[in-house]
Amino acid sequence: MTTHTAEPIGPEQQALEEDLVAAVVASFDATTDPRLKKVMQSLTRHLHAFIRDVRLTEAEWNTAIEFLTAVGRITDERRQEFVLLSDVLGASMQTIAVNNRAHKGATDATVFGPFFVDNAPEIPLGGDIAGGASGQPCWVEGIVTDTDGKPVAGARIEVWECDEDGFYDVQYDDDRMAARAHLFSDEDGAYRFWGLTPVPYPIPHDGPVGKMLEATGRSPVRASHLHFMVTAENLRTLVTHIFVDGDPQIEVGDSVFGVKDSLIKEFAQQAPGTPTPDGRELGGRTWARVRFDITLAPAGV
Amino acid sequence: MTTHTAEPIGPEQQALEEDLVAAVVASFDATTDPRLKKVMQSLTRHLHAFIRDVRLTEAEWNTAIEFLTAVGRITDERRQEFVLLSDVLGASMQTIAVNNRAHKGATDATVFGPFFVDNAPEIPLGGDIAGGASGQPCWVEGIVTDTDGKPVAGARIEVWECDEDGFYDVQYDDDRMAARAHLFSDEDGAYRFWGLTPVPYPIPHDGPVGKMLEATGRSPVRASHLHFMVTAENLRTLVTHIFVDGDPQIEVGDSVFGVKDSLIKEFAQQAPGTPTPDGRELGGRTWARVRFDITLAPAGV
Repeated sequence: MTTHTAEPIGPEQQALEEDLVAAVVASFDATTDPRLKKVMQSLTRHLHAFIRDVRLTEAEWNTAIEFLTAVGRITDERRQEFVLLSDVLGASMQTIAVNNRAHKGATDATVFGPFFVDNAPEIPLGGDIAGGASGQPCWVEGIVTDTDGKPVAGARIEVWECDEDGFYDVQYDDDRMAARAHLFSDEDGAYRFWGLTPVPYPIPHDGPVGKMLEATGRSPVRASHLHFMVTAENLRTLVTHIFVDGDPQIEVGDSVFGVKDSLIKEFAQQAPGTPTPDGRELGGRTWARVRFDITLAPAGV
Repeated sequence: MTTHTAEPIGPEQQALEEDLVAAVVASFDATTDPRLKKVMQSLTRHLHAFIRDVRLTEAEWNTAIEFLTAVGRITDERRQEFVLLSDVLGASMQTIAVNNRAHKGATDATVFGPFFVDNAPEIPLGGDIAGGASGQPCWVEGIVTDTDGKPVAGARIEVWECDEDGFYDVQYDDDRMAARAHLFSDEDGAYRFWGLTPVPYPIPHDGPVGKMLEATGRSPVRASHLHFMVTAENLRTLVTHIFVDGDPQIEVGDSVFGVKDSLIKEFAQQAPGTPTPDGRELGGRTWARVRFDITLAPAGV
């Protein structure tokens, strides 16, 4: 029981470590589900490769156990610190990448995040998702097509975002439902609604994941974004965001690695008094507008 | 959002996935502690390699999050399911292997386990560790030397084990202290005590780790063993067990991969009435005896 030395690792020690990996891999040989077997054996190989590569000390192993225990302790119905951990390690985004391959110009996917809720209200085309949430009004419009360019009528579009203080409705204690809604594309595949101009916000960083980010000099802040989930029959469900062109956090680095160039959009700022697309009166406030055309891949690709 | 297909992964998709790994690795570049930086960057690489190798589906990612959440929920002051998880994946044993390299005939180390307690009573040489725990009496003796064969006087020897029902004292609710003690080697490095003949027992398997073992057709049972931790000035602390030669669980596979051939010892069964080494009267019961000579490596190797 000691910290490791930098002494080179001899062939005997190598063999001993490799034999152990082989024994753990073999312990999963009797798994009846072939997929589970494959996943557990691969996990074993990569986990052991990590321990051997860094020559993990026993003190570091203890720190890892304490860290995971703390992640478990803070996780409850309202907070999912394991998801946060997966997010900041890019594991969530890599899983998205593996499962949503680029397909003939289909819109890129990005992380789902922890703030979606299932029963957001339906709004009509041109309606407002704010529901009392504060922020600069933002007109969002676009058209939903498939990868052949054919308009997709009746696509279900879920949208959600934080308010201007950087909080989602579910982060307040009062059961409010705000800054989230769903709507459907019209017969031409077009959609439009009033949202809020996205602002940057930190992921919850008062827990163990926040401590890890601090210890490694990383920002907990997410680049400003508006979430979309678009579903339509026979087409691949798209989970994505759009990001705000010019947001300095894009350069600093989104804390969960969600940004893709194709998803950065111009949110055009409008001077007070500029006529709105639907004639809405904004009482002399500034507003913004953005266009986001959505291309859905076929299901099963 | 779909299950992955078996379609080959093109160079564009490969590049996209590799770029993401590079971005996450780079996010740790500003870490001031060089060791922490190295550990996090290696962890990132191996974690992403795992996700990419198995083409982890989003449903499997969800299952992993749910599994870790359940591991966190069952962990408390009395139960450490993350240690158990590390144990059954062989990660604990690999960490031991990395940090306790074979050194000139020094006794092999093995897993520490979750059942050590700090303040076990001191017994004299030849004393009994049972403290009321049930089991077959077992005479344990040996000599502590360094790797030059020089006897180590005054080595502190901590020993602990389960009772004949397979439970450690701390697994009972009544604060008992039993089947654990510490003693010191004499001026010739010799030690001796009465313990209990070890029996096999399952690791706690009513939680998520137990479910994983069941789903993968693995036994939760540990091969019979007696724990030792031996400390002496200027020598490497040894954490180990001895195992019982002939225990069928050694063939089935120890659930935490702790067995090493060098640690399997003959526990010689003694017929009722066989005179004991110290003249102790066992009232016509059978007993066992085992010899375990301990060789300590120098500190810092």
